[in-house]
Amino acid sequence: MSLERVEELIAERKEVYLEKLFLILRQKSISAQNVGIRECAHLVQDMFTECGIQSEIYQTRGLPIVYGEISRPENTFTLLIYGHYDVQPPEPLEKWLSDPFEPTIREGRIYARGAGDNKGQFMAHLLAIRSYIDVYGHLPINVKFIIEGEEEMGSPNLPLFVEEHRELLKADLVYTADGSSHESGAQSILLGVRGMLYVEMTAKGAEWDNHSGNKGNIVPNPAWKLIDLLKTMRNDQGQVLIEGFYDQILPPSEIDKKIMREIPYDLNEVKEKIGYPNLEMDSETYQHKLMFEPTFNICGFNSGYTGPGVKTIIPSTATVKIDIRLVPDQDPDYIYQCIQQHISKHAPDIQLSEQLYSVPSSRTSPDLECVRLVAEAVEASTGRKPVIQPSLGGSLPDYIWTKILGLPSINAPYANFDQGNHSPNENIKVENFFNGIKSTCHVIHKFSEK
Amino acid sequence: MSLERVEELIAERKEVYLEKLFLILRQKSISAQNVGIRECAHLVQDMFTECGIQSEIYQTRGLPIVYGEISRPENTFTLLIYGHYDVQPPEPLEKWLSDPFEPTIREGRIYARGAGDNKGQFMAHLLAIRSYIDVYGHLPINVKFIIEGEEEMGSPNLPLFVEEHRELLKADLVYTADGSSHESGAQSILLGVRGMLYVEMTAKGAEWDNHSGNKGNIVPNPAWKLIDLLKTMRNDQGQVLIEGFYDQILPPSEIDKKIMREIPYDLNEVKEKIGYPNLEMDSETYQHKLMFEPTFNICGFNSGYTGPGVKTIIPSTATVKIDIRLVPDQDPDYIYQCIQQHISKHAPDIQLSEQLYSVPSSRTSPDLECVRLVAEAVEASTGRKPVIQPSLGGSLPDYIWTKILGLPSINAPYANFDQGNHSPNENIKVENFFNGIKSTCHVIHKFSEK
Repeated sequence: MSLERVEELIAERKEVYLEKLFLILRQKSISAQNVGIRECAHLVQDMFTECGIQSEIYQTRGLPIVYGEISRPENTFTLLIYGHYDVQPPEPLEKWLSDPFEPTIREGRIYARGAGDNKGQFMAHLLAIRSYIDVYGHLPINVKFIIEGEEEMGSPNLPLFVEEHRELLKADLVYTADGSSHESGAQSILLGVRGMLYVEMTAKGAEWDNHSGNKGNIVPNPAWKLIDLLKTMRNDQGQVLIEGFYDQILPPSEIDKKIMREIPYDLNEVKEKIGYPNLEMDSETYQHKLMFEPTFNICGFNSGYTGPGVKTIIPSTATVKIDIRLVPDQDPDYIYQCIQQHISKHAPDIQLSEQLYSVPSSRTSPDLECVRLVAEAVEASTGRKPVIQPSLGGSLPDYIWTKILGLPSINAPYANFDQGNHSPNENIKVENFFNGIKSTCHVIHKFSEK
Repeated sequence: MSLERVEELIAERKEVYLEKLFLILRQKSISAQNVGIRECAHLVQDMFTECGIQSEIYQTRGLPIVYGEISRPENTFTLLIYGHYDVQPPEPLEKWLSDPFEPTIREGRIYARGAGDNKGQFMAHLLAIRSYIDVYGHLPINVKFIIEGEEEMGSPNLPLFVEEHRELLKADLVYTADGSSHESGAQSILLGVRGMLYVEMTAKGAEWDNHSGNKGNIVPNPAWKLIDLLKTMRNDQGQVLIEGFYDQILPPSEIDKKIMREIPYDLNEVKEKIGYPNLEMDSETYQHKLMFEPTFNICGFNSGYTGPGVKTIIPSTATVKIDIRLVPDQDPDYIYQCIQQHISKHAPDIQLSEQLYSVPSSRTSPDLECVRLVAEAVEASTGRKPVIQPSLGGSLPDYIWTKILGLPSINAPYANFDQGNHSPNENIKVENFFNGIKSTCHVIHKFSEK
């Protein structure tokens, strides 16, 4: 069975579907400012209804989650689709070429805040379902939706909601279209993310800054204390010396290595993007570092006088901010304990903050059949082989799906790589939006064949 | 020959001499703001004339120096007295109990900006000369004066002026009364200062801050680079590992050790003063550290995000400010070269600033007869044995006298230790002012007996 008729219908409805998307793009929904959030949640619910999906708005401790479900007793497979209806603030407004909340098409792109991140992408799912049903009368698999309103704030209430609604969210696979396709232009299939642990360490000297002449080499200098500690934590090759730090790390599998080799890599593009022309790194090292190696990174270091010119003091405090990107199966709590133990052994008077941010890593095995099926669905709808990435370098709360629900989780972003999410003139290509609708249809179709 | 008659005269003229001091205290002379400086220089010149001293105002590239001289062909000894007529800004004004430029006596103290630092002290010299002449008709030694107007700005033009006027300034001893007496209440006799070299080191990573997830462990982190370098420069015992750093250091002599042992020391007072209750240090270690050991001190360290909370970046730069206190005979230029060589060996891409501040150390041997004579003069006028210190922990341009002119240099501060110089309610005790006048008389007298 092919999806020819569905694809024809999608093409016929181009203007109608664009108008549906525009309706939701016009509705502000800035979670950071709590602007338009509830109005947008209701608009999403209306869309669900229009597409034949039953829905309910769940109040959380924060902003509402829109839950949707379409199922038939005879279906054996359930897909849980995740998305978010909140957007980034549009500022700086003067940098936009058109009103961020009045979607405008220019040169094949829809410009609006949220066009790519994430309204254009979750709307593709909804319109796919409408199209599929309008051709076939029903869906061959069950589909559940969780569209939240706090993603741009770090999804603070999503983990608890998911924990408390395991039964409701029972499924076979979590499917997301969020983020951007690969820089090569091909679509990405993302199978995981690194975790993150963020801590601060503070060394104290005297109760106030002292004169470095009259008191120099009498009062202990907390900047030196902190540097001494940091050097016991990491050698100058970048290796972390904290006991236990590497204990839980899983090496890449053979298939991980294989798909890593297939990821397009352009050193010059990387250099330009990071602003570091001296980078010398081959593709294998690059991919391995980003996906399979943890970091122990200084985000900030602050001590004493940092203004212009000369001030002669012994600082009273020194603080370092550290973010640690974690790979499977490093547990943030365990790593935090390792750091605690290291400090109490080497510099017990240095203060370790609580975990300022903590999110476990997450990974779905590329061996799974569902990965192959999604890849085939994407290829069928775009005509191009997607790039499968075992992991992102960054951190997202994907563990909610893989660790709390224990499900495989696949993210196949529909938006173009230059969507400018979080920036002025955010956009999604019209082509990507409609390919997205088709992709979701193909995914549904693929899993019905199982 | 005793100075009984001179001391009587000084006592008789108490009101007259206070009024002379008040006249000069009323004249603002804030070098940092260039307020009242020229007026004050002329007022100082008038005082010279009144005291029978010939004088001239020298224009420098900055603010004027008042030079004075009183000599007779038959005198064989020449004393060069240094002082400064400029003062710190009086702010914060609301903290003063009386107008900083209207001297007021309360509980035996004269309150005014400059009362201790340094008008009350150089005026003591002038009035001593007037008193001495009025009793004896002439001075038994030659006295030269150099009273500058830029001390509170770090004396930027004094070294060049002195270099260009070596002949004019020919003398046997440089004598200063600036700073405060010892905390024990006894007068200090200061024989030297540590030098200082101040530099910045900057490590660069990428051209801008990068996201620590997507780019973490790809882009080099300049904070780590700088920490790695710093740790090659100093071990965790505080020892400096830069080759050549300790090469030029002179150990204390036996007499240095002897006079160090005589310096009063109160650990609890030190703890309280520096705000570090955990300090454990005996007197010998304390004095040795402050006077005979160099420092390699971090005044400031700045990299990346230093605000509250979490920001996940790889900083693009990291900067450290270092001040190095130098002891005889460490040469700032040589130490700077050692640092340059160390960096080019260990981290050639880290930038070393120029010498942001550089002043050599200075020391006058406690073995010299002039030290004994000044000590005796001070004891004769105050009735109490002074505390002789081989060096201050801090840094002042005393090398101008010892290295440019090649003279011994003794600083015997007349002001009380709680004068509050640079603070609101600066003061000099009336007793200290008059003891100062007597001290200068005794010093003149002592050197006439030579």
